[in-house]
Amino acid sequence: MTIHLDPPDLFEARLRQIGADQYHDRHRFHARLHSGQCTADEVRAWVINRWYYQSRIPLKDAAFMSRCTDPDLRRIWRSRIEDHDGGVDEGGGLRRWLKLAAAVGLDPDYVASGVGVMPATRFAVDAYVSFVREAPLIAAMASSLTEMFAPAIHTNRIEGLLQHYDFANADSISYFRHRLNEAPKDVDFTLRWVMAHARSREDQDLAAGALRFKTEVLWAQLDALWNGYVEGHIPPGAWQPHQGLA
Amino acid sequence: MTIHLDPPDLFEARLRQIGADQYHDRHRFHARLHSGQCTADEVRAWVINRWYYQSRIPLKDAAFMSRCTDPDLRRIWRSRIEDHDGGVDEGGGLRRWLKLAAAVGLDPDYVASGVGVMPATRFAVDAYVSFVREAPLIAAMASSLTEMFAPAIHTNRIEGLLQHYDFANADSISYFRHRLNEAPKDVDFTLRWVMAHARSREDQDLAAGALRFKTEVLWAQLDALWNGYVEGHIPPGAWQPHQGLA
Repeated sequence: MTIHLDPPDLFEARLRQIGADQYHDRHRFHARLHSGQCTADEVRAWVINRWYYQSRIPLKDAAFMSRCTDPDLRRIWRSRIEDHDGGVDEGGGLRRWLKLAAAVGLDPDYVASGVGVMPATRFAVDAYVSFVREAPLIAAMASSLTEMFAPAIHTNRIEGLLQHYDFANADSISYFRHRLNEAPKDVDFTLRWVMAHARSREDQDLAAGALRFKTEVLWAQLDALWNGYVEGHIPPGAWQPHQGLA
Repeated sequence: MTIHLDPPDLFEARLRQIGADQYHDRHRFHARLHSGQCTADEVRAWVINRWYYQSRIPLKDAAFMSRCTDPDLRRIWRSRIEDHDGGVDEGGGLRRWLKLAAAVGLDPDYVASGVGVMPATRFAVDAYVSFVREAPLIAAMASSLTEMFAPAIHTNRIEGLLQHYDFANADSISYFRHRLNEAPKDVDFTLRWVMAHARSREDQDLAAGALRFKTEVLWAQLDALWNGYVEGHIPPGAWQPHQGLA
């Protein structure tokens, strides 16, 4: 087995290549969003559907912790939940996402209710939560490594939103600024862990497959968004542009 | 509670209305397919992706049986698995689907491998299997009631395929002819069971919600198909038209 094991630098390069090939920064929806071509309703549809993804991240991380018998690993992992959920009364990515929702003219309670999320969004995101609950541990961890590629897209997004959209200001897009600090801390730890624990080619393949799976989860959400709100084929039951306004 | 319980005829009408509103016979991909407007590659993409749905139906029914403690109910439900899997050496919907695959110029082994299925297809179909494994029993059963609406679409499909496509003949489309006989038997039993066991408004809502969920599973598959192969935005890793040919 070990003869086929990639050395660490090649293994890391393999993981990074997955991002270069198919991370959702390459999706046309983000090109449209960051260059100011999205209509107000397209931005709203993105905020509503991406909320579902955001809202499931703490569940995903709790699912991971629910199967993780190593207290040290749990202690480190817990900060992911704290980053998104925040404190009892304030802070956290979820609350920051709802600030964005309000800034684009949506009722934050409507967005938080999850009503109007496209079924395709739910299917993709729920697949991610199930994966982290059920896959081998190294795969469950590696699926979070899309965060390796996140700072670049967040930097582009912050610039693009501030430049092109009236709703964008330091407060309304604070979610993304916070992620610029949070994601690298998570990814440094997780990448080191995955590198150290991938002791066979099989492990490396599991980790690479998990990262690819996660890029598919992200990509499928944008495909559905494009089909529904750029092409205008909104699936039955999903948000219609006059709904949920503040 | 009982004061809000719909009488049987109203409850059945409520279920049938879900089909009228959002069963996938209303999706533009089927209009395109049945009217002969699909290219050979669009038909192939449909055959490849719908294979994934077909292939997961016996797993879905086994998941149902794995939680079903009533032997009588299991004995009846088992015929669904038999209909799709067939015997050890021959018969069954899966083998008939692969005849269709061969007829449209695909390598049946390629199709059966599931390589090239779009992630969005997997997410939607896997959500269905999980639902049947996890939802309350009445919801798990009611989610199969989309078969109430299937004979009409199969009749249209048989006519449309025979009229418009050279690959269509009695053998290559035998899957659909068999379903015309199989689906009504399943649905008669299941509809009666759901009607009899929905003893509260809550039960009726669960059943209606499950049927709506299932229509969403079907619809999301066609949205993804349209985006990928009619619009031409094939997601990373999915089937490319030159692959898997016989």
